[in-house]
Amino acid sequence: MAMEIYWGSGSPYAWRALLALEIKKVPYTSRLLEFSKGQHKTPEYLALNPRGKVPALRNGKVVLAESLAILAYLDREFPQPPLFGRTAEQAGLIWKSIFESMNYLEPVANRVIAPLFFNEAAEKADDIRAAAKDVHAELAGMERRLAAQDWLATDGLSAADIAVYPWIELLLRAAGKEAAGPLNLGLLPLAKTYPAIAAWCDRVRAVPGYDKTYPPHWRN
Amino acid sequence: MAMEIYWGSGSPYAWRALLALEIKKVPYTSRLLEFSKGQHKTPEYLALNPRGKVPALRNGKVVLAESLAILAYLDREFPQPPLFGRTAEQAGLIWKSIFESMNYLEPVANRVIAPLFFNEAAEKADDIRAAAKDVHAELAGMERRLAAQDWLATDGLSAADIAVYPWIELLLRAAGKEAAGPLNLGLLPLAKTYPAIAAWCDRVRAVPGYDKTYPPHWRN
Repeated sequence: MAMEIYWGSGSPYAWRALLALEIKKVPYTSRLLEFSKGQHKTPEYLALNPRGKVPALRNGKVVLAESLAILAYLDREFPQPPLFGRTAEQAGLIWKSIFESMNYLEPVANRVIAPLFFNEAAEKADDIRAAAKDVHAELAGMERRLAAQDWLATDGLSAADIAVYPWIELLLRAAGKEAAGPLNLGLLPLAKTYPAIAAWCDRVRAVPGYDKTYPPHWRN
Repeated sequence: MAMEIYWGSGSPYAWRALLALEIKKVPYTSRLLEFSKGQHKTPEYLALNPRGKVPALRNGKVVLAESLAILAYLDREFPQPPLFGRTAEQAGLIWKSIFESMNYLEPVANRVIAPLFFNEAAEKADDIRAAAKDVHAELAGMERRLAAQDWLATDGLSAADIAVYPWIELLLRAAGKEAAGPLNLGLLPLAKTYPAIAAWCDRVRAVPGYDKTYPPHWRN
């Protein structure tokens, strides 16, 4: 039986797993869970991942959760092309880039994204503006890096690009909401605000199989 | 020149790097920074790690920050004994355990630890109690696992044990503060509350070289 990947539309974590599978050209069975129907909280799914989060992966007897653990597993099981570098130094730089995103970008990005997605922009406007300032500081660092090199951590596409990219897409989608207008977030259009990040996004979108990873409900 | 590790006493992140170096028996030069003197914010250190955080590692031309990136680097550069498993499945389980700690234990543990360390226990008592409930839920999961196996993620000591252990020590130290008494955190003595976790802590403490990693200012 092919590997199964359980995911949800719009989850940045699940998106990472799908991108890794496409890049490695690993055959997989897609199990798209509908959050609105609570399909990530059914007894069957909770048996697979007791935390009720996506993604989860099942490959024979191997069951895994946590998106970056899934990436690390896939890279060991299917080494080509390598997502965590060819040398110790590259591996270190890739993980450093991933943890910088987790520790410094994602928490502040979430404070911008979540209230815009859940219609709380008006009451949380002050916190969104404060968080947006920190988001810009992190994006400025990424912009400098991507102005000098094509990919975030090393000279090729790596797990760092896969891990960070969905968060940029979420930020763009949040910034495009009508309620974001009065907040003047300064994120759009990305090609003007952060041209190197915009060009990098285009490089990720050109990955073969990318279309299959795009959140289905975003197309509507 | 030997590898240099920049660390600070009591930082759980720095502790991880020291433990990995001792376990792998890699020679290193210890650069202990004194936070109280701002030695992590000097121009020299910021040139090494612009975020001014510990640990940072320098090995010839390689400069790295982010504790778990340092562990991943060390494991590729000095493969024995392996800290990220011998198989893809083990690597996945080890990283899963690490990310579960990062995502579910550390944020709530910090809400218990920080106010107790910084003399804010009285005014933050309600939040400490709320967070302690979530801490107990995570510890209960660890307890079940460690009642069934000696190490957190696989059948041997791994990066998961190294990553999580300092947080347990921080929790114990916070719970031992006088101001923690009225909060009835239910953490001490660990041998009674979580005997399997206590036994696991003893196994980590028995690692050769462990003493060199223990926060110096905790001895006073």
